[in-house]
Amino acid sequence: MSDSLPPLRVDGRLERVRIATAEAGAEAIVVTNLTNIRWCTGFTGSFGALVVSADEAVLLTDSRYATQAPAQIEEGGADVAVHVDSAVVANGAAVLQAIPRVALEADDISWADQQRWAEAVQGELVATHSLITELRSVKDDAELVRMQRAAEIVDQTLADVAGLLVVGTTERQLAAALDDGMRARGASGPAYETIVAGGPNAALPHARPGDRAFVEGDLVVIDAGSVVDAYRSDMTRTFMVGAPDDTAIKIHEIVTRAQAAGVAAVRPGIEVGQIDAVCRDLITEEGYGPEFGHGTGHGVGLDIHELPAVRGGNTAILQPGQVITVEPGIYLPGVGGVRVEDMVVVTDDGCRPLTRSPKISLK
Amino acid sequence: MSDSLPPLRVDGRLERVRIATAEAGAEAIVVTNLTNIRWCTGFTGSFGALVVSADEAVLLTDSRYATQAPAQIEEGGADVAVHVDSAVVANGAAVLQAIPRVALEADDISWADQQRWAEAVQGELVATHSLITELRSVKDDAELVRMQRAAEIVDQTLADVAGLLVVGTTERQLAAALDDGMRARGASGPAYETIVAGGPNAALPHARPGDRAFVEGDLVVIDAGSVVDAYRSDMTRTFMVGAPDDTAIKIHEIVTRAQAAGVAAVRPGIEVGQIDAVCRDLITEEGYGPEFGHGTGHGVGLDIHELPAVRGGNTAILQPGQVITVEPGIYLPGVGGVRVEDMVVVTDDGCRPLTRSPKISLK
Repeated sequence: MSDSLPPLRVDGRLERVRIATAEAGAEAIVVTNLTNIRWCTGFTGSFGALVVSADEAVLLTDSRYATQAPAQIEEGGADVAVHVDSAVVANGAAVLQAIPRVALEADDISWADQQRWAEAVQGELVATHSLITELRSVKDDAELVRMQRAAEIVDQTLADVAGLLVVGTTERQLAAALDDGMRARGASGPAYETIVAGGPNAALPHARPGDRAFVEGDLVVIDAGSVVDAYRSDMTRTFMVGAPDDTAIKIHEIVTRAQAAGVAAVRPGIEVGQIDAVCRDLITEEGYGPEFGHGTGHGVGLDIHELPAVRGGNTAILQPGQVITVEPGIYLPGVGGVRVEDMVVVTDDGCRPLTRSPKISLK
Repeated sequence: MSDSLPPLRVDGRLERVRIATAEAGAEAIVVTNLTNIRWCTGFTGSFGALVVSADEAVLLTDSRYATQAPAQIEEGGADVAVHVDSAVVANGAAVLQAIPRVALEADDISWADQQRWAEAVQGELVATHSLITELRSVKDDAELVRMQRAAEIVDQTLADVAGLLVVGTTERQLAAALDDGMRARGASGPAYETIVAGGPNAALPHARPGDRAFVEGDLVVIDAGSVVDAYRSDMTRTFMVGAPDDTAIKIHEIVTRAQAAGVAAVRPGIEVGQIDAVCRDLITEEGYGPEFGHGTGHGVGLDIHELPAVRGGNTAILQPGQVITVEPGIYLPGVGGVRVEDMVVVTDDGCRPLTRSPKISLK
């Protein structure tokens, strides 16, 4: 299926990494987060470190990747040398000789590994946070094509399995049908553990599918996404099995309205926290503020949870090309819950939803 | 399915952690590896830290686990208090007041988190390595029951799908049949990404299943395991599609013999590296030493790769209750490969295989 995808090019990304590294007060960076290494170089292996200085970039990995690493780097177009040898720290330190300050990804390197680099390099180590993940939050066209397809697959699969939303189906059966269906439609797999939560389980934002069968009157939260060429999608819809009661109708309507208001608020230049505020204010005005106990959304990309965090107080400015979810919810412990979520890409003047499954009304 | 499993009890484990912590030169430890926290307390959440001092043990986690954490700890029987609050480091530091040396799991804490603990605690931080994973390597009876069942499931599932070992089946189809079959037989899932590697792909020890269909004369490496109540199994067999050629017959026979010799060598009191030597010496004598490019095996348990590492030079002493794999292989680039693997538990005077699928002969 990937034959029909436009090629991913990574050239240009290292220049942005160099600028951000300089802004962080260092002359070089050791990239240890494997997803960041992938984004910088195209290399998908499970072991390695990437050293980027002003005039050099070297991927250090072991002999398992002697063929794969140069091939993937050539395909991506980055100017990166490959050094195949399991002594990553020693070889990396050789590249970093005489560099006064070396940035490490403090959240993505163990203390033990930090100690190894500290012993091996002459320069001072500088702890950086989110340096590359901030750059990753803005997607290019080739990335967006993959995320669009991952979104279409979950849209289509959800329609395929709608017939299972009946009394007697178990959460696990419906989740398995979604996972199998997404694979059959060309996804490499689910983007995270698919959530199907019926009845009282719908009150748990992170419920795991179990053997409970749907009964008449259940709200059913379905939170699913797929992976296409490593890029992810994320969507939630809440359905009814049988006839809804007044509470179900009410909270479903409020959440759907809050979610639409949140999506309508997405545009470049605003603080990310404003999107959370739009959703939360509406739900709070309706009296369900305490029952909306999580943030409104998150960035998506190579990881299912990326920057920016769409939560109250986040003063980061939304940028075109960022992909975020908008997913308010109301959870009534012991009773049920509703969450509605779309994944949208920020455009020059607003946003474009990538997930497009219809939103039902329970009325 | 877990109703029929004997209960897992974790009481007694914290005492062993306290002794090991003292041996490492600290009066308390902050456990940040979530699998280690699970082993110590029974808690299965995705966020938390466990502080263990001589007279106190406190699990720090957030409000998502306010109900789950105390329930799981009561079920496991450990004497652990639960502190529900997202300010884990601040609350953990309060427990650690006046403790002179605090151990951190250096391989399982980020540099960023180590810096947070360093700022919050008064004592000196001591980097420890493998302190709890060494304890975890010895399994108790309730753990072994789970691993035995996980092994039986892969044995049975492999027999179920044997009919797919024919010309035209793709690697991916066979891998999916194994994954589905293991779930149908009661596993919560595969223990790792199932490997089905046919023909030239069998020469890659870590091949991922692709769309290549088996052709006459393929060696097919199947490396699969299942999960039962979080405990894993791991097994490999190599089959033929159609008639084997002389090389296939020869390397299959050598690997099978080396693997049997390795299993026969397993007994308590020997150095773990000796098992590697037994397999490697036999393969080397047959002239295929360079084509056996990985270690002979590894411990298995809650993680698929645990201590001890069954590789040359490991002078750790094998102990009763440890579960290890013995999995030599021969890989001929571009041609094919053979690997045969069993998971065995070390007994008082030898070992007992947990995986029991028959070993075929190609002759």
